[in-house]
Amino acid sequence: MKNDNKKNIHLDGIKVSTTFSGIKKTPDNEHDVLLIEFDKPCSIAGVFTKSLTSSASVNQCRSNLSSSKQATARAIVVNSGNANAFTGKLGEETVSKISKFLSKLLKSNTNQIYTASTGVIGEQLDSDIIINSFKSMTSCNTQNWLQAAQAIKTTDTFPKIAIRTCKIENVNIDIVGIAKGSGMIAPDMATMLGFIFTNANLPSNILQKILKEANETSFNSITVDSDTSTSDTVLFSATRRAKHNLISKHTDRRLREFRNSLSSLMLELAKLIVKDGEGASKFVTINVTGARTKKSAKRIALSIANSPLVKTAIAGEDANWGRIIMAIGKSGELADRDNIKIYIGDELVTYKGMMYKNYSEVRATKHLKQSEVNLSIDVGVGKSCGKIYTCDLTHKYIEINADYRS
Amino acid sequence: MKNDNKKNIHLDGIKVSTTFSGIKKTPDNEHDVLLIEFDKPCSIAGVFTKSLTSSASVNQCRSNLSSSKQATARAIVVNSGNANAFTGKLGEETVSKISKFLSKLLKSNTNQIYTASTGVIGEQLDSDIIINSFKSMTSCNTQNWLQAAQAIKTTDTFPKIAIRTCKIENVNIDIVGIAKGSGMIAPDMATMLGFIFTNANLPSNILQKILKEANETSFNSITVDSDTSTSDTVLFSATRRAKHNLISKHTDRRLREFRNSLSSLMLELAKLIVKDGEGASKFVTINVTGARTKKSAKRIALSIANSPLVKTAIAGEDANWGRIIMAIGKSGELADRDNIKIYIGDELVTYKGMMYKNYSEVRATKHLKQSEVNLSIDVGVGKSCGKIYTCDLTHKYIEINADYRS
Repeated sequence: MKNDNKKNIHLDGIKVSTTFSGIKKTPDNEHDVLLIEFDKPCSIAGVFTKSLTSSASVNQCRSNLSSSKQATARAIVVNSGNANAFTGKLGEETVSKISKFLSKLLKSNTNQIYTASTGVIGEQLDSDIIINSFKSMTSCNTQNWLQAAQAIKTTDTFPKIAIRTCKIENVNIDIVGIAKGSGMIAPDMATMLGFIFTNANLPSNILQKILKEANETSFNSITVDSDTSTSDTVLFSATRRAKHNLISKHTDRRLREFRNSLSSLMLELAKLIVKDGEGASKFVTINVTGARTKKSAKRIALSIANSPLVKTAIAGEDANWGRIIMAIGKSGELADRDNIKIYIGDELVTYKGMMYKNYSEVRATKHLKQSEVNLSIDVGVGKSCGKIYTCDLTHKYIEINADYRS
Repeated sequence: MKNDNKKNIHLDGIKVSTTFSGIKKTPDNEHDVLLIEFDKPCSIAGVFTKSLTSSASVNQCRSNLSSSKQATARAIVVNSGNANAFTGKLGEETVSKISKFLSKLLKSNTNQIYTASTGVIGEQLDSDIIINSFKSMTSCNTQNWLQAAQAIKTTDTFPKIAIRTCKIENVNIDIVGIAKGSGMIAPDMATMLGFIFTNANLPSNILQKILKEANETSFNSITVDSDTSTSDTVLFSATRRAKHNLISKHTDRRLREFRNSLSSLMLELAKLIVKDGEGASKFVTINVTGARTKKSAKRIALSIANSPLVKTAIAGEDANWGRIIMAIGKSGELADRDNIKIYIGDELVTYKGMMYKNYSEVRATKHLKQSEVNLSIDVGVGKSCGKIYTCDLTHKYIEINADYRS
């Protein structure tokens, strides 16, 4: 697995175009529509928000994917500035109009067109604006992934892109992913969009299994503010141009490096989202061990990560570990009070149900002054563990969310 | 039922004393220990935090109450400034020492002594300080409830007290309650202490049922920051001096007025806690109707009340109702997207799965500019309802919690 620092890569058979349509209101007319075209049907997989008020686009993608075990895609259309969520039947018609127009243009089926929208909830999206924007895009078909990542931003302060190269059976495989998200971020999933592309020769059902697995420890392990969006979407497409043999099981060991690469790429994107968390001044890793089950470990970690009191203590660089105890307690998950070990960085804080005798608040505070904070908690009842990535809660979060319509 | 505006009332057989012990560090030596003595054993009931890391005092109260169906009390000791939570075996010994000393002094059993502590978590509480403070209190045995409410404050900005008078079988009944709490407030229960006293002639098992019932729609229906304390305690004591007949069922209609009075008193105290929510600038009532079950209605209301994005929108007086849709969706509870009706104040916002055609953002914003905000949400799938009281999330909350050790 190679983690490439240069943020470009070329995947044959994919056209990437962006344009400015005016849906996203920005002073410098930032691009707000992204069109990905596949010259041949590619395999595709997806994971989505668990919100019960999911957006029209999420519903469409889900329906496309479930139409066949080996669903394929010819295009992905993404716009920022308007989420087309809670827009009723009209919102569904908008998605349908865009898909129909594009499928005619590309001579494909409508269920080979995937859409995603992000932005304000509850306002109608004008399908004509999107359709007209396709016209201005046909000429510029470079493969500028950075530009693509730019076009899907909303309150993000920087574009998010990650690249991996690896091998399947000695054949070079490239993977590129772009993502957006910084607020309304909580697992299942974070308020986020992610689009990942590879040349691997894998059918949709294998892609789906690998995506779901990697998603659990990446996008499903981050939280900014505990709020879950209506539009969360991650799509994973494979052009199948790589000349390795067809592999029919996702657990085949020939796919091990590929799976690790994908997990690592998705974790990189997930961490970038947390680092761009609204108002975040610190990146926080919460590692829970000694839990009864994996699920329990993750729940405890989330309870700590989402606690406003823990988040504000970290913002204030205050080693107020009583708030961590509180958050463990409120999770409702099993923990042995007298066996809980809390570490702030490497500093052991609690031991045998009370403050550890050699605990140094000075050392703990020193760790909290860094930009990356690690909290490790062993709850002393089992062998399972779980990790959650989050950020602190600052004045800036209030400014962004109380003072502007996002 | 009479809601008395004057905040004093005298209950025969109860001595109320407070003193300054130095446990709570304040510039003006505020009283920080409260002692309630009953001259005869009174009946008593209690409800407590659901935290799995509950404090030593909570564990002691629970154990006292479960020692007998008709548990009785001779004294309640409360201190502010130190929660005696996560203090291990030493913390339990502290509670035990205080109870033993006081039971000797009052010639009672140790399980007739109830304690409650609030303040910093994880620091040892010195039992000698509490014990010594009793000496300075024996002389001042007035019944100043306001002073009592003052002594149990931590980050509270005002003392919380409520009074009701009602009748059982034409006999005058008085009820007085004091409470504290403003941060780490979420149901089951809010981080809070509450102590309620009455002269009604009711045994402990009846008190317990009535308390639990009233608790559900009061202290268990408020949230400030979703964080649950380790020390939440509400104790309800009855001196039994009133000369009505003994009533053996809590549903007896002769108790109806009394139950309503208690519910109303507890709701008043609960609302005072929300109004004193850390950094709160607005009091918010979230009323969910049309839900599948009562539990489901309450969960949806809580999901909205605890959403940082909803709370910051209210702070910013921004009618960003998409965030309410998001919060309904993330609750995981059943709602019919096309039947959801959201009202901001009296203004209908959504209808048939999209924005209502006559919705006026100007009118909604006007409502949000008031200090009391009402959000009503009908989720369109059933007949159950639930109400949650909360506050907005402001810069002040961050200031209080990021900038000072609380």
